[in-house]
Amino acid sequence: MTSRLFDAAAGLQCFFKCENLQRGGAFKIRGAANFLASMDPADVPRGVVAFSSGNHAQAVAIAAAHFRTRATIVMPHDAPASKVEATKAYGADIVRYDRLSEDREAIGRRIAQETRATLVPPFDHEWIIAGQGTVALELLEEVPDLDAIAVCIGGGGLLAGCATAAKAMKPQIRVFGIEPAAANDTFLSLQEGKRVEIPPPDTIADGLRATTPGALTFPILQQHIERVLLVSEEEIRAAMQFIQTRLKLVVEPSGAVPAATVLHRKLPPGIRRVGIVLSGGNI
Amino acid sequence: MTSRLFDAAAGLQCFFKCENLQRGGAFKIRGAANFLASMDPADVPRGVVAFSSGNHAQAVAIAAAHFRTRATIVMPHDAPASKVEATKAYGADIVRYDRLSEDREAIGRRIAQETRATLVPPFDHEWIIAGQGTVALELLEEVPDLDAIAVCIGGGGLLAGCATAAKAMKPQIRVFGIEPAAANDTFLSLQEGKRVEIPPPDTIADGLRATTPGALTFPILQQHIERVLLVSEEEIRAAMQFIQTRLKLVVEPSGAVPAATVLHRKLPPGIRRVGIVLSGGNI
Repeated sequence: MTSRLFDAAAGLQCFFKCENLQRGGAFKIRGAANFLASMDPADVPRGVVAFSSGNHAQAVAIAAAHFRTRATIVMPHDAPASKVEATKAYGADIVRYDRLSEDREAIGRRIAQETRATLVPPFDHEWIIAGQGTVALELLEEVPDLDAIAVCIGGGGLLAGCATAAKAMKPQIRVFGIEPAAANDTFLSLQEGKRVEIPPPDTIADGLRATTPGALTFPILQQHIERVLLVSEEEIRAAMQFIQTRLKLVVEPSGAVPAATVLHRKLPPGIRRVGIVLSGGNI
Repeated sequence: MTSRLFDAAAGLQCFFKCENLQRGGAFKIRGAANFLASMDPADVPRGVVAFSSGNHAQAVAIAAAHFRTRATIVMPHDAPASKVEATKAYGADIVRYDRLSEDREAIGRRIAQETRATLVPPFDHEWIIAGQGTVALELLEEVPDLDAIAVCIGGGGLLAGCATAAKAMKPQIRVFGIEPAAANDTFLSLQEGKRVEIPPPDTIADGLRATTPGALTFPILQQHIERVLLVSEEEIRAAMQFIQTRLKLVVEPSGAVPAATVLHRKLPPGIRRVGIVLSGGNI
């Protein structure tokens, strides 16, 4: 999608990849579907388990239903009610936990062991990364002459996949990762040259609250991305409002983070045409 | 656009024509652009005048700017602030009036006479009707095998144009006009067989507050539409919310009126595939 009004405000030509219009309301279905499609068919009937603040959960639930198997989803108590309801509606079983005191990964692994189901990690897996990378694949197929792409970073699965796909298709493309300033684990990690862990961040962008980049995603980001740019909570809100009132699209806070960077003219000079991933719309 | 979730709720296959994503945020640019393109070129430099609760105003402002001439817009004092601001931003001069006590048509005509500008009527003109009809033209070009289309009725320009185009392309298509129950002037007029005038209606659908069908639009509606269906204010709100939370699209109340009818299963039996016009997104 394009918008004259957004372009005028940003001073650039912008091309939006609207993953808010994707099934499940976010890009996550790409990785989840690729994961289930790549599993040993003998393992599929025993079901899958996922831990997620929301969009990955819905995606695994949809993918599991498509492959006619069972999904158990470990979700934090403070996950948005709309995401919990939507995940249930797709037929998944929900297990709640306390985001600040409990370890969702440990809970997910325990359930997987007890039920012999397969854990579908939210980002740190080759199949997930490859699936998410189809976002950039499709964007560049449709708009080949982009100077840059801007992608948000939670655990880094979307950006690692997009960077891999984009650089393979167009080696000179500039790839930017965007984080909320309050959730700058990848920014700090790239600065230090190793994975840094931050405390659970308090940001409106609930999909980007990962506390450290993935073991698999981080080296990919180190190799391919030019820089991580940071946006404030106010800039995220302003971008959401602009997209809602002028582009008539609902994007969730996490989904508006790369658009916020571009709207507030934080990209470095030399870029005229930029691809912006609107990663989700589940407010 | 399509939505599995909407289809499941409505029990039909629905195809949305997203005029909320149109320039100016509504279908109105179609009629306004066709009007200015059809004018005697000698008249264009003297400018145009329009009276409108909002979307027609923005459309005339955009079309006038495109044809490098001046637009004067007569808008009610209670027009949504977003629409007034947007119209100003497109370069138009604004004249305000009181919707309940003053006659916007008289004000518009006076300004047109004084400045020798051309009045661009909001709906009751062949060029406007023909322009709005391209909504159905495009929808049926893309989705030819529709059983029915559902279109909102303000003054009837959009529906008259869409009905004319749809019936010409596909004589057996069923055409439904939809009004808020609180603004049922066309419903009553069709019942009585002549144009009925109602008091200024109080409905959240601010684009559908016309008090009587147009002299030109009404006979076209009499000829082509199967029935007018009515929706409540609650049904309009519920449809807006569904479209916003599940389809991730912002639609204004008027724009959600046909979707409200389909979502609440008010279409008669025998329809499996329906085209629904989301006429605007300027909340």
